[in-house]
Amino acid sequence: MKSVYCFGNGKADGSAKDKNLLGGKGANLAEMTRLGIPVPPGFTITTEVCTHYMKHQSYPDGIENEVNTAIEFVENIMDQKFGDMDNPLLMSVRSGARTSMPGMMETVLNLGLTSKTIPGLIDKSGNERFVYDAYRRLIMMYSDVVMEKAGGAEPKEGEGIREQLEEIMEDMKKNRGVSLDTDLTASDLKELSELFKNRVKETLGKEFPDDHYEQLWGGISSVFSSWNGKRAKNYRRIENIPDVWGTAVNVQVMVFGNMGENCATGVAFTRNPATGENLFYGEWLKDAQGEDVVAGTRTPNPLTNSTKEDGSALVSLEDDMPEIYLELDGIQKRLENHYRDMQDIEFTVQDGRLWMLQTRNGKRNGMAAIRMAVEMLNEKLISKEEAILRVRPEQLDEIMHPMIDPASEKSAELLAKGLPAGPGGGTGQIVFTADVAEQWKSDGKKVILVRNETSPEDVHGMHAAEAILTAKGGMTSHAALVARGWGKCCIVGCSALEINARNKTLTINGQVFNEGDIISLNGTSGKVYNGALSLIDPDLDSNTYFTSLMKIADSVRKLNVRTNADSPADAAQARSFGAEGIGLCRTEHMFFDPARIMAMREMIVAENEEARRTAIMKLLPYQREDFYGILKAMAPFPVTIRLLDPPLHEFLPQNDGQITELASELKIEKDSLKKRIDSLHELNPMLGHRGCRLGVAYPEITEMQARAVFEATVKLIKEGEKPFPEVMVPLVGSVTELAHQKKLIIKIANDVQAESGIKFDYLVGTMIELPRACFTADEIAEEAEFFSFGTNDLTQTTFGFSRDDIGGFLPQYLQDKILEGDPFQSIDQKGVGSAVKMGVDKGRLTKHDLKIGVCGEHGGDPNSIDFFHRIGLNYVSCSPFRVPIARLSAAQATLNN
Amino acid sequence: MKSVYCFGNGKADGSAKDKNLLGGKGANLAEMTRLGIPVPPGFTITTEVCTHYMKHQSYPDGIENEVNTAIEFVENIMDQKFGDMDNPLLMSVRSGARTSMPGMMETVLNLGLTSKTIPGLIDKSGNERFVYDAYRRLIMMYSDVVMEKAGGAEPKEGEGIREQLEEIMEDMKKNRGVSLDTDLTASDLKELSELFKNRVKETLGKEFPDDHYEQLWGGISSVFSSWNGKRAKNYRRIENIPDVWGTAVNVQVMVFGNMGENCATGVAFTRNPATGENLFYGEWLKDAQGEDVVAGTRTPNPLTNSTKEDGSALVSLEDDMPEIYLELDGIQKRLENHYRDMQDIEFTVQDGRLWMLQTRNGKRNGMAAIRMAVEMLNEKLISKEEAILRVRPEQLDEIMHPMIDPASEKSAELLAKGLPAGPGGGTGQIVFTADVAEQWKSDGKKVILVRNETSPEDVHGMHAAEAILTAKGGMTSHAALVARGWGKCCIVGCSALEINARNKTLTINGQVFNEGDIISLNGTSGKVYNGALSLIDPDLDSNTYFTSLMKIADSVRKLNVRTNADSPADAAQARSFGAEGIGLCRTEHMFFDPARIMAMREMIVAENEEARRTAIMKLLPYQREDFYGILKAMAPFPVTIRLLDPPLHEFLPQNDGQITELASELKIEKDSLKKRIDSLHELNPMLGHRGCRLGVAYPEITEMQARAVFEATVKLIKEGEKPFPEVMVPLVGSVTELAHQKKLIIKIANDVQAESGIKFDYLVGTMIELPRACFTADEIAEEAEFFSFGTNDLTQTTFGFSRDDIGGFLPQYLQDKILEGDPFQSIDQKGVGSAVKMGVDKGRLTKHDLKIGVCGEHGGDPNSIDFFHRIGLNYVSCSPFRVPIARLSAAQATLNN
Repeated sequence: MKSVYCFGNGKADGSAKDKNLLGGKGANLAEMTRLGIPVPPGFTITTEVCTHYMKHQSYPDGIENEVNTAIEFVENIMDQKFGDMDNPLLMSVRSGARTSMPGMMETVLNLGLTSKTIPGLIDKSGNERFVYDAYRRLIMMYSDVVMEKAGGAEPKEGEGIREQLEEIMEDMKKNRGVSLDTDLTASDLKELSELFKNRVKETLGKEFPDDHYEQLWGGISSVFSSWNGKRAKNYRRIENIPDVWGTAVNVQVMVFGNMGENCATGVAFTRNPATGENLFYGEWLKDAQGEDVVAGTRTPNPLTNSTKEDGSALVSLEDDMPEIYLELDGIQKRLENHYRDMQDIEFTVQDGRLWMLQTRNGKRNGMAAIRMAVEMLNEKLISKEEAILRVRPEQLDEIMHPMIDPASEKSAELLAKGLPAGPGGGTGQIVFTADVAEQWKSDGKKVILVRNETSPEDVHGMHAAEAILTAKGGMTSHAALVARGWGKCCIVGCSALEINARNKTLTINGQVFNEGDIISLNGTSGKVYNGALSLIDPDLDSNTYFTSLMKIADSVRKLNVRTNADSPADAAQARSFGAEGIGLCRTEHMFFDPARIMAMREMIVAENEEARRTAIMKLLPYQREDFYGILKAMAPFPVTIRLLDPPLHEFLPQNDGQITELASELKIEKDSLKKRIDSLHELNPMLGHRGCRLGVAYPEITEMQARAVFEATVKLIKEGEKPFPEVMVPLVGSVTELAHQKKLIIKIANDVQAESGIKFDYLVGTMIELPRACFTADEIAEEAEFFSFGTNDLTQTTFGFSRDDIGGFLPQYLQDKILEGDPFQSIDQKGVGSAVKMGVDKGRLTKHDLKIGVCGEHGGDPNSIDFFHRIGLNYVSCSPFRVPIARLSAAQATLNN
Repeated sequence: MKSVYCFGNGKADGSAKDKNLLGGKGANLAEMTRLGIPVPPGFTITTEVCTHYMKHQSYPDGIENEVNTAIEFVENIMDQKFGDMDNPLLMSVRSGARTSMPGMMETVLNLGLTSKTIPGLIDKSGNERFVYDAYRRLIMMYSDVVMEKAGGAEPKEGEGIREQLEEIMEDMKKNRGVSLDTDLTASDLKELSELFKNRVKETLGKEFPDDHYEQLWGGISSVFSSWNGKRAKNYRRIENIPDVWGTAVNVQVMVFGNMGENCATGVAFTRNPATGENLFYGEWLKDAQGEDVVAGTRTPNPLTNSTKEDGSALVSLEDDMPEIYLELDGIQKRLENHYRDMQDIEFTVQDGRLWMLQTRNGKRNGMAAIRMAVEMLNEKLISKEEAILRVRPEQLDEIMHPMIDPASEKSAELLAKGLPAGPGGGTGQIVFTADVAEQWKSDGKKVILVRNETSPEDVHGMHAAEAILTAKGGMTSHAALVARGWGKCCIVGCSALEINARNKTLTINGQVFNEGDIISLNGTSGKVYNGALSLIDPDLDSNTYFTSLMKIADSVRKLNVRTNADSPADAAQARSFGAEGIGLCRTEHMFFDPARIMAMREMIVAENEEARRTAIMKLLPYQREDFYGILKAMAPFPVTIRLLDPPLHEFLPQNDGQITELASELKIEKDSLKKRIDSLHELNPMLGHRGCRLGVAYPEITEMQARAVFEATVKLIKEGEKPFPEVMVPLVGSVTELAHQKKLIIKIANDVQAESGIKFDYLVGTMIELPRACFTADEIAEEAEFFSFGTNDLTQTTFGFSRDDIGGFLPQYLQDKILEGDPFQSIDQKGVGSAVKMGVDKGRLTKHDLKIGVCGEHGGDPNSIDFFHRIGLNYVSCSPFRVPIARLSAAQATLNN
């Protein structure tokens, strides 16, 4: 087992194909080196070593020899020696997992600075200040990351070694009467280094190591340990990254962007990651280290003139270092062509020489992903299939999220303007910490997280917030990167904000806002407003990139996509999103209308069939009207109408006052009403008298609903429409139930056809949502003209999980990895999925061309859609706003299988 | 298709093998005829004709010719002619389904008496009175059964044609000043016949038919129609007889037991149906028709001297007609040997000649079935396998039912004595109608149905009653037959009873009892007592027939039989019934003990793990004690202990007073206790935070329970016992849950072994009670050392039926045949059974010798046991009293498959 892979000087042991072994960063460093692009030489310790280290808390045998050989390889290229007195080499250590986990793991720079090497480096560089600045940085970083965190210490807030050292530095600046770090002199920094080392020993009980090897191995171990740090674990849980992957460690020669005026550092994207526009886009800082750009402590300059804001005083790299810029521009074009995707790159200029530190496929928001996919296809950079696979279905959700209503924006009070880091709109209550954000969100509130800058520690709060607003940082700051990854509205670098997190106040131009006050953000323009602005749905029709992508997806997918809609408006909206029918029209919501619920209640308390029939028939005109509108909105696409499903007690009042009132309205004794309500009470209503069990007990309900459907159908046919109703019997567990209900429905259909003299087409089918229905699907298919899987209920019964009650244990189940995910979000393929597959196979055994769909929440979930494609469903049905996601997912499912 | 099968004079078209086609009665008439036994000649119209008639309301083509040919066949044998003026033949029409449905369908006798044939018959018989008595009986029966009931009329109580005619007859007796029917003269009866015919025309609007063919076809049709009568349908529902079977119709020459002193009629059993004793046993009446014996209107004489009660004045057939008796005794012996089973026979003596009217396998109660099976095996009449199959497993239930405690009987107030028609004891409240019996039973009361005599209309009330008591009737009366079929305590012919059903009073020797008063019956001795007597369990050990049968069954069965027991006493009892281990020991009941529940509640309201652990560990000594006793009672058999299963809210009080009290006992704020209780409330607790989900959330519960089990095990081993605990994790849906719990359990086992220095064997397995567990049983088997199917919960989730809530719709489902049976009583083989089978197959795919059992209620149900045998389970586990039933069922399953 080879544990160490070298790269440098045009040669590399690995390549871009080795991501699993070398991590994304390591594989791409090797690939760039192979392409002849200037990369600081180094080597990558594999993810297998991480796995070994995690399991055994030790390294595989022989790794030290491999590392020593690799160091020699680098020394030869650089003509320097690690730990050498005269010509010392410094090293950096960086993490790099298969998939990027920005900021979640540790980095240690400047390794190799010791009492032995410092004099030589001062000689060699002629810059004592730079050397001691690097040294004090090393001590700060190393004591924090390697000595304290990797050692497992969890110091109290504000008492960590890093904070202590920062305090010492602040004290020195105060003593020297200076305000900037850069105002400290070489001797200041030298003294500071000594103070730092003393404090490290005092606090952590150990000397800061003065041996270059010890430093290097400390750095390597701390990176491996950080794979199992709290932040990284949380991130993996949210992003569904397996724990077993592990991280690689990249050890590279240090290059410095902070050695003077002919030095610089920067990050860039080969296209705009927020809009997708095909323009080289990035930020840089002169005489700085990479972390200065990302941390948002200084506002960086634009790379190119074309992306510079009008009138900005900031100097572009294009103007400041034109030759370097030309070289960089050539490299970025080469990288994008080579990788055939937008690249996110990091570079450093040391002494006028350009070094590439990283390239990777760049994260992008939904809008940008769509535009890039379509434009790259048009540029013939990628194929149709690749274009479809380039957009994550969830990214479509972003562009379908509400935007600030321009009308309400006009009259709104503009408070400030920042950088538009995540498009879309958001409105909510101000909170100042991630914990409060999460808490308030779980209390049902909408919050906007307001911070000076964000750090990986804030990720859970950022996730919980509607939108994120920071005072500092640029378009590539932590807040911006994370928000964009989630398609969340985000504004960064909004310098007008004065945040006092302790007092929980936000002051903007003297106006004070408290925690809980409401503001609104337009993440597309970067504008911050006072109060709640109304949000509107985006106009997808005029988004030609979106419509192009959908068209391509539609040409590929095999699954039809329907929608779940209970009203003509929802039906029309879904149709505009491309729905090809309604897969689930719930009829019970229609009964809750105040004008109707009384008839429903009369029906429920009726003492005999006749009284029940009289009451229920009062609902006929309403239901006919409902179905008329929905069938019309969707014609000629099919509309699957589910018969009454919920238990009757849901329609009755529960508190005493309401019961008294209802009794008097219904003109019955309160006691007898109470008795009826009591008699309907159930211990487990989910498993009680509902679904087709109602239709069996009260056939008149089925008859009324069937009549309403068919009379609406006849009316539409008379008007020249082509409605196509599919009547769906819910919660069938035995074919006998379906047969019982089907007989009633067919009888009514025949009656309505005879009465009207108009023939119409319709289907009678069933919802498959109980395990028994899956086990006996062959029998049920004898009666059913279609199946529609109700995977919500099927998940409840297959797992024995009440969706209403899993809050008591699901969070722990997810945390302890007892479940890999929430089975109500993405279908549990092993268990519930097996039940569905069995139902499909058995159903088709009886009727080989049986039409089968799914109408639970899973119908809009990409992973679930992939599964439904594989087991041969005909369609999925989802909420209107998920329809485009389902269309794209269905296309991807075709390509992936 | 041949529709009519003849028999007579030693020849028959059919035989005993043709039960499906000819019904039991018809097949046996053919068989007896073939054996040369004297049977009145006749013919059987097949069950296929019934099915055709039910479907089309008409007869198949050509049937009239077949019937006519058959009549000629009979006429030739008898040398008489149907409808002939001089030498007329009379016919009877009787039903006969595959399986006996006593009294549930119609019979019409004396067909062929018309104005044309009456004079000839008077001439021929020389007995005018007999002829007119037969005629008035024909009119009564025919007008009731054929003209009124089969016509679909439903007259009000007391207004039926039969009641009207009876009233006319009573009036005539009053006018003539006589009290007995037999006191009416020939001319009285002739006049009565005319009065009857007039009333029939008046009431039913039709003439009583004076044509012999019309009479015959009317009779045949009425029998076919009665297959779908209310009584027959109810009976089929209770007895699970398919509607599609249909009945045959037997048309036979009339023979009369009521033509004078050398005539008689009787019914008999080849062995005693109540005790099983091998003694010819029956009852007879001189000068009577068969219905007189069965109806209980006259108390019949014993057949043999050996069965005559000491000092009885009743004359036996053996003494009265010794030659007839000898012939009959020969026939009964031949029949039993031929059929190799106890026979229930009917005979008539006409003019000193014996005719056999019926033979069939006799119904018997459990005690008798067991004794007969064992004795017939000893007599080498049947094989071991047949002996096992002779006893219906449910019949064992009878002999395990409580008996009146002899001690309490001694001091009890004896009210009366009747015939001991159904053994065992019963105590309950007096009711006088079947409807009230059913109503009170459903209200949770225990009732004793008290009637003058019972009729098929009373069947539902008899079913609901604890015991049945009648004033009239003999050991073969309707009440006695039905009660014995169900193994129900029953006393008949208790002439001391004066029943006034209208006033709802029962008077015994002047003492008046009202509806609701409590009495007790000893069905084994026939004694009726005042008040409630205590009941005791029967002593099975001294029942050598029972122990023999069990031994034979054990030698055949493949399935092991365990018991569900939660206490040492239950465990010991079950072991005495033959249990080979405990398949389910529930641990939660142990927590409800007042001394323990407080610790449980402390645990539930604890704010952190430490407090929770402190509270739960208080339960350790109790639990250790529990397990010690149970493991000891069962050692060396295995004991499967299920970890805590129910949701925690079951352990907390719900009403305000109790909450206040508990808060003060626990020394916490009432509000915070209330909040905790609210937080535990669930909408669907069946699908909520319970089972292993508790053990995952609160590992300390699992740890405490495992420690209690293992410490008890160690203690027993120290005492020289060989305990074998199997720890069962409930409600597992994912292998990860089991792995989580198993790790904790093994850790504790290792700890206890290390602490005590004693090694012990144990298993860790899981309950399979969720569909997902079945679907992923291959994965779960990686961790499980055994599976135990919890088919109660599996039925709930597979069907989506809450067992607590199905009362709302199950009755209708059963009535409408949407379900064939209650799936909680007998496993639903198609659905739930498929899930179990899948679980077994998948589990064994991973571990081919995985031990698998079932521990739901189904473990004691014979049909379910047959299924579990077929799919290869290792054992079933049931409640202690079902253990013998399970042993026998398991043996039968081996033989039947």
